[in-house]
Amino acid sequence: MKKVPVGVSARHIHLSPAHLGQLFGPGAELSVFKPLSQPGQFAANETVEVVGPKGSFAKVRILGPVRKRTQLEISRTDAFALGVNPPVRESGDIAGSAGITIKGPAGEVAIEEGVIVAARHIHFHTSDAERWGISDKQKLSVRLSGERGVVLENVVARVSPDFALDLHIDTDEANAAGAKTGDEAEIIG
Amino acid sequence: MKKVPVGVSARHIHLSPAHLGQLFGPGAELSVFKPLSQPGQFAANETVEVVGPKGSFAKVRILGPVRKRTQLEISRTDAFALGVNPPVRESGDIAGSAGITIKGPAGEVAIEEGVIVAARHIHFHTSDAERWGISDKQKLSVRLSGERGVVLENVVARVSPDFALDLHIDTDEANAAGAKTGDEAEIIG
Repeated sequence: MKKVPVGVSARHIHLSPAHLGQLFGPGAELSVFKPLSQPGQFAANETVEVVGPKGSFAKVRILGPVRKRTQLEISRTDAFALGVNPPVRESGDIAGSAGITIKGPAGEVAIEEGVIVAARHIHFHTSDAERWGISDKQKLSVRLSGERGVVLENVVARVSPDFALDLHIDTDEANAAGAKTGDEAEIIG
Repeated sequence: MKKVPVGVSARHIHLSPAHLGQLFGPGAELSVFKPLSQPGQFAANETVEVVGPKGSFAKVRILGPVRKRTQLEISRTDAFALGVNPPVRESGDIAGSAGITIKGPAGEVAIEEGVIVAARHIHFHTSDAERWGISDKQKLSVRLSGERGVVLENVVARVSPDFALDLHIDTDEANAAGAKTGDEAEIIG
């Protein structure tokens, strides 16, 4: 049995160093609210407001550390509320994605692209992937059992020595499956 | 291939005759905004506000005609926003479900139970069910294909000569699967 812990990602944002400065002031740094399952990653104490044509979210958590490019990850439900139409993409693949306005205590930034609905994926440490014969970019089928049991298809495998084993799904997927962080999923194909 | 059209149910409410009177005034009747896929059912022009401990929705569509008991059907995402914790239930099975406050132009009503997350289900006309060898209450597995393809397990079959063939899922399920009303699903088991 290939069991994988479930991690549910609520809407969140990654900021570039330049945008962090524009939103929080020159020289601003992120402070750690709590560490995440992936080594070195953390939820920051800092939040931003994101504003779309139809609606806004007042407090969107920033995940650190800073990244090369700013990326807002939301659910499809969030996208309807904001009035934007982001594509389903893997993290980092933001060319031609949706734009949004981001507001911080020291300023605001309008990004032309960077808003995505994150494609569900499993982080594998290299040793987990080798043990199970799974390769980077492979598409997997994963069962979330229960009253609202679902099988998620097209789950992307991401393999790295820097990763810890974790299935990342968004709140729509979690709610559709009645799943929560800490549940167990099973890779079935 | 057992193909079934998809119908996505946004949050909505069914009212009892007594509650309709309390919310819209004595003798009030629902007027038809548009007919639904199930024969005789309609979306009404009238809406209500629903208010939970954490949040509210200003305009929740009433579906008619009136029913014996008032029932609010919401997604899990909606439930978090309202601050209520409804069970996943089949329509009509509301004993011990969650409560909510409902506001209309002529008054308000607090219900002790009646708030549910609707269990996904397929309406079968008796002739469809016979043709495919499916019986009432049977649990089915249904594939929604695509980029975010999922297999929904525990989909309840509901068979009646009054029904038209339709898979009913909520907005969390639709968004998790990248599905919309009018798409086609396939019963696979």
